[in-house]
Amino acid sequence: MHVEQRRGTIVESRHHVHVAVVDPDGRLVARAGDPDLVTFWRSAAKPFQALPLVADGVAEKFGLTREMLAIACASHSSEPAQVQLVRDFLAQIGCSERDLRCGPHPPLSEQVAKDYETRGVRLTAVYSNCSGKHTAMLALARHHGWPTEFYTRLEHPVQQRCLEEVSRWTDVPVPEIKTAVDGCGVVCYGLPLRHMAGAYARLAIADFGLRIADSKGEGQIRNPQSAIVQSMLRHPDLIAGTGRPCTDLMRAHPGRVLAKVGAEGVYCALLVREGLGVALKVADGHGLAAALALAAVLEQLGVRPRPASLGPRPNVNTRGETVGELRVNGELEK
Amino acid sequence: MHVEQRRGTIVESRHHVHVAVVDPDGRLVARAGDPDLVTFWRSAAKPFQALPLVADGVAEKFGLTREMLAIACASHSSEPAQVQLVRDFLAQIGCSERDLRCGPHPPLSEQVAKDYETRGVRLTAVYSNCSGKHTAMLALARHHGWPTEFYTRLEHPVQQRCLEEVSRWTDVPVPEIKTAVDGCGVVCYGLPLRHMAGAYARLAIADFGLRIADSKGEGQIRNPQSAIVQSMLRHPDLIAGTGRPCTDLMRAHPGRVLAKVGAEGVYCALLVREGLGVALKVADGHGLAAALALAAVLEQLGVRPRPASLGPRPNVNTRGETVGELRVNGELEK
Repeated sequence: MHVEQRRGTIVESRHHVHVAVVDPDGRLVARAGDPDLVTFWRSAAKPFQALPLVADGVAEKFGLTREMLAIACASHSSEPAQVQLVRDFLAQIGCSERDLRCGPHPPLSEQVAKDYETRGVRLTAVYSNCSGKHTAMLALARHHGWPTEFYTRLEHPVQQRCLEEVSRWTDVPVPEIKTAVDGCGVVCYGLPLRHMAGAYARLAIADFGLRIADSKGEGQIRNPQSAIVQSMLRHPDLIAGTGRPCTDLMRAHPGRVLAKVGAEGVYCALLVREGLGVALKVADGHGLAAALALAAVLEQLGVRPRPASLGPRPNVNTRGETVGELRVNGELEK
Repeated sequence: MHVEQRRGTIVESRHHVHVAVVDPDGRLVARAGDPDLVTFWRSAAKPFQALPLVADGVAEKFGLTREMLAIACASHSSEPAQVQLVRDFLAQIGCSERDLRCGPHPPLSEQVAKDYETRGVRLTAVYSNCSGKHTAMLALARHHGWPTEFYTRLEHPVQQRCLEEVSRWTDVPVPEIKTAVDGCGVVCYGLPLRHMAGAYARLAIADFGLRIADSKGEGQIRNPQSAIVQSMLRHPDLIAGTGRPCTDLMRAHPGRVLAKVGAEGVYCALLVREGLGVALKVADGHGLAAALALAAVLEQLGVRPRPASLGPRPNVNTRGETVGELRVNGELEK
């Protein structure tokens, strides 16, 4: 499968796509390219980095709302309401913006970025698309009595706890997970696509959390992932933002699709009804190609219709002429 | 050969590169990937679109300077001096900005773009990176007495004349050249890389122009490409702009290297001393990867040193930490 940039009648550029579609038992049910490709999960790991909030009782202790759980899993657009939600979340756990260690960057939404530039808004850490995740990590530290300083470092108990959670869901032993520094400074995870997809598929399994809890001797926690999944499904507007692919896909199929982007051409999804996990990587890291590819993969898996924003994308030149298009070519092998 | 985006110890994304290195007789002397890949030449065709200025006597008639010939071949940065040069060129051929049909766009130089935005400069057609080429096309029309209207269209004699010139240098018959609409609205050419490289190699051959001229029965024109090549080699600052790869490469090897970028990951070069032409395409269209790949290819062909700006490029995250790098991996096969 690839995403083609066509101009006139020929393909000008080509983005190769690797895809794994996996069931909760880790069985590969469909693929394209190399489902065992190892790459970084980037922000598509956020639901699993947020899971300790529920599994460890952090959400209960601090009275976190579903909105707060959703923003912990988000690569948000820095929309005013999203930034305010992170500020509320910080206040609720007794932290402030000064505790955040994510770096600032222009909002992922071009419209929001322009608006803030026009208005002269100073972009601080709370505006980072990862500020919800960072706040969740601070909450985890507060809850366990760990220091909030240096929470981004691999050796910090917060990162070790997230790594353990990622290992459990992906079924990759901790020593086999490649680690590096993410765009926002925390640890990111190098894993085969097949295992990323398997983790998403398991989010749909009611007793997977129970089995985890049992193995830790904390049988009272029955299903931590349910709170994460339900929070995400109910708040597509918080997971990304207006006009962005995760939000468009989840709004097009309410309660049925959970979609989460990662940087450098990574995309993951859970098909709730089918209990399938999807993980894909555009080999060259092209973000728009990854979004179009995910929409096409979901369509091939029976999730229709594809949102209009994620169909073939016209290539418009500086004179406003449509001179070609970016479109997906190829089918999943089943 | 590929350009790798590394993060920590693993390759996160990969840009495949196809390369053809060809001598003036069209012999492939080195390659990587598929040297017969067909893609659009885009702005790397500009020297050949400018050649009729000299071959048809346009430059002589209007008294065009070397600077004007250079800007005709440029994808310039819209720097103030470059824009002024295009305005002078327009005046010299009795045209005005209103005759230009290129669409406006933010300058290719980030610094120039920021500066113009701060100062509220209104970006009109003359600021297009292709405004020199468009002015050259207007000059060609003026010279031959063709209408200046609709000069961008395939059926217009200006585009037919350029197509003929491209066919002659690339040794691809006109009917076999795929045409489409370029980013600036004129015709662009779909060709195998090997033939693009061959055309660049022929720029170094003193009698190639003579043979062309003879075939047209105009034996008095001895070497039109010499004026184009010398104009480009003497004005690396006009071919792109401060800090951009074409300019850096040509300044690092004055008189020895002629480098010309095209959009969507295309790069071409002439090694003057060796008489070799290079054409490469990053399969997915990544522009920075193409520049790093060209610098690496030239180094492998003995053109040293590589400009510092075109070595491995650190990947710096939002916290200012270096978390990886973009670098070329692989050798030409000879």
